[in-house]
Amino acid sequence: MPVITLLSDFGLSDYFVGSVKGVMLSLNPDVTFVDISHQIPPQDIFTGAFTLSQAYSCFPQGTVHFAVVDPGVGTSRKALAATAAGHYFVAPDNGILTYIMEANEDFAAYEITADHYFRKPVSATFHGRDVFAPVAAWISRKIELHQLGPVLQSPVRLQIPPLKRVRDALIQGTILAIDHFGNLITNLKPEDVSMPFKILAGQREITALRRTYSEGLPGEIIVVPGSAGFLEIAVKGGSAAATLNMKAGAPIGVILQ
Amino acid sequence: MPVITLLSDFGLSDYFVGSVKGVMLSLNPDVTFVDISHQIPPQDIFTGAFTLSQAYSCFPQGTVHFAVVDPGVGTSRKALAATAAGHYFVAPDNGILTYIMEANEDFAAYEITADHYFRKPVSATFHGRDVFAPVAAWISRKIELHQLGPVLQSPVRLQIPPLKRVRDALIQGTILAIDHFGNLITNLKPEDVSMPFKILAGQREITALRRTYSEGLPGEIIVVPGSAGFLEIAVKGGSAAATLNMKAGAPIGVILQ
Amino acid sequence: MPVITLLSDFGLSDYFVGSVKGVMLSLNPDVTFVDISHQIPPQDIFTGAFTLSQAYSCFPQGTVHFAVVDPGVGTSRKALAATAAGHYFVAPDNGILTYIMEANEDFAAYEITADHYFRKPVSATFHGRDVFAPVAAWISRKIELHQLGPVLQSPVRLQIPPLKRVRDALIQGTILAIDHFGNLITNLKPEDVSMPFKILAGQREITALRRTYSEGLPGEIIVVPGSAGFLEIAVKGGSAAATLNMKAGAPIGVILQ
Repeated sequence: MPVITLLSDFGLSDYFVGSVKGVMLSLNPDVTFVDISHQIPPQDIFTGAFTLSQAYSCFPQGTVHFAVVDPGVGTSRKALAATAAGHYFVAPDNGILTYIMEANEDFAAYEITADHYFRKPVSATFHGRDVFAPVAAWISRKIELHQLGPVLQSPVRLQIPPLKRVRDALIQGTILAIDHFGNLITNLKPEDVSMPFKILAGQREITALRRTYSEGLPGEIIVVPGSAGFLEIAVKGGSAAATLNMKAGAPIGVILQ
Repeated sequence: MPVITLLSDFGLSDYFVGSVKGVMLSLNPDVTFVDISHQIPPQDIFTGAFTLSQAYSCFPQGTVHFAVVDPGVGTSRKALAATAAGHYFVAPDNGILTYIMEANEDFAAYEITADHYFRKPVSATFHGRDVFAPVAAWISRKIELHQLGPVLQSPVRLQIPPLKRVRDALIQGTILAIDHFGNLITNLKPEDVSMPFKILAGQREITALRRTYSEGLPGEIIVVPGSAGFLEIAVKGGSAAATLNMKAGAPIGVILQ
Repeated sequence: MPVITLLSDFGLSDYFVGSVKGVMLSLNPDVTFVDISHQIPPQDIFTGAFTLSQAYSCFPQGTVHFAVVDPGVGTSRKALAATAAGHYFVAPDNGILTYIMEANEDFAAYEITADHYFRKPVSATFHGRDVFAPVAAWISRKIELHQLGPVLQSPVRLQIPPLKRVRDALIQGTILAIDHFGNLITNLKPEDVSMPFKILAGQREITALRRTYSEGLPGEIIVVPGSAGFLEIAVKGGSAAATLNMKAGAPIGVILQ
């Protein structure tokens, strides 16, 4: 059974997600759907890119990933179909696949121009339904990506926030994402810091490195190696985002000693 | 694989949706589920009707649509099974299928009275699980609708807000729905207006007609032909519902010149 | 087709649910997923237990239920696989299966120790993906539970709030849960009260017993035998939780006359 995953900022209230799946099922009745998230903040390509990057590799090879956070729908932004590590992707060419490109040397993208695969008439405002859904379904039916259009040499890439070494013992990092529990996912990997260290975040100094969220005292602010491969700032039994009043994109400091 | 779509006001927190699908799978293990929405505002039949109307026709013929927004559960309101355009529907007889009736001359409804298809005991408060779920599953197993009960001649219809010509150059319309992005979906079709026009909404005059959401200046209030076939009022990079402080059902004016 | 249901406090925004399903599909591509809820309040084992208890028995025998609300992830809390009434369960050993244990004399649990079934490396913070997902998929492929580890004699049980007879004509009960509509689900069964009665809740006296939510006057506070088998406190056309300002766990009184 072919698998199609779906990631978008469509929300779950409207007809959007249902319409997309209906179009796909009309072209490939054998498909298995998995929603990754439809609650990406509206038009937040960066959060969409991060969320997709954490989920796609858990799926079997051959999975088609529909990733549509698309503030430029209906404009001249390109539509792309891509492959990497045995997975397939359909997405607007706006950087939402940046992490996939960075992680996979075999990443290859094609501009979707073959409009005979589209649902007609193509609306100017819902390419998720009219362009990306049918193309994803056709890929799940094993058409080759080059049938969709020409190779796209330089797809748009987002700037993934890098670590900056400000001084010998001071690194500047960034909050990449905030999860449902209020944990702050940083761009620090465990190997980037050595003990003892201090993380400066939201005007607090955090020095407690724990193995999991439930260690430490109730309300204590701790650092935990998270399941996405990055250090996370957490509060035992609470929300670090609320405690520290921080948002995705906020800077943090790391003092090594 | 038979497809069943689900639309309700059950929300996603409770046992409601899981129970419904469990009952269906117990009767037809081969079914493919697609959730259209479970976040219809509680008891808001009108929004349920609109959302269903936008999604159902994207699905393959033979799909069974479970549409349960049911403020009258347990009362004498009827339960109905219907067919239109090759699709099947199970729903309370409260108008939630109004758009389907209006759009399809072949619409035919049956009152569900054959209680040997029901889950027993039938609760007075959850016909979604005990009546509509098993009936939808049996339809997906290809029973005929007339096996469920007698033809229903006059199912309940909602009043879909019409356009009213107030004066030669003044039309009164209505906001049909508000989507996840805060776009206001009107009951105006592109062919109902001619350039130049003014839309009066929330004490603002809107004259900018754009092809897609991202045209125009940041924060500008614009009119866009939306994917549901109606004109939408949108704000580039923002929420028109918040900017104009408008809700579904609110009136708008259109001045043609 | 094997069925796996999923219940968690993961929310629907992040990569969590998608990752779990991707891991499962990689091990068993034939599985049908049904989400019961991912909106259990963070770390609220009790609400998770209640929600699971209401949904699982609607599913076909052989269904595998993944139930992961896991505040102790990464600590010494055990992981368990269990069976009852022909269903299978994977969950942390923290009481989330309490209602299943209470309702089924054939309940049997095994401690999951066979780590060759796990996804490697096992993170300390996301056993949903790395432990429970692969184990659920292997059970759906028909491994025997004893292959996962030794029998667990005394799994953790929550205290389910009992009814207390305070005086001959006074019973103390508890709000077990609040649903999406704001209905207050009590731990009273219809057979626990006899007419006439008064329920004391949030400083109000409620005497109106109705058969369904839509009986009574608009705004009236009523008692309804709910679909979970318990009496519910409801407000016609409104939210009892908001009207009475009550939360799950709050006490109620019942005066019998």
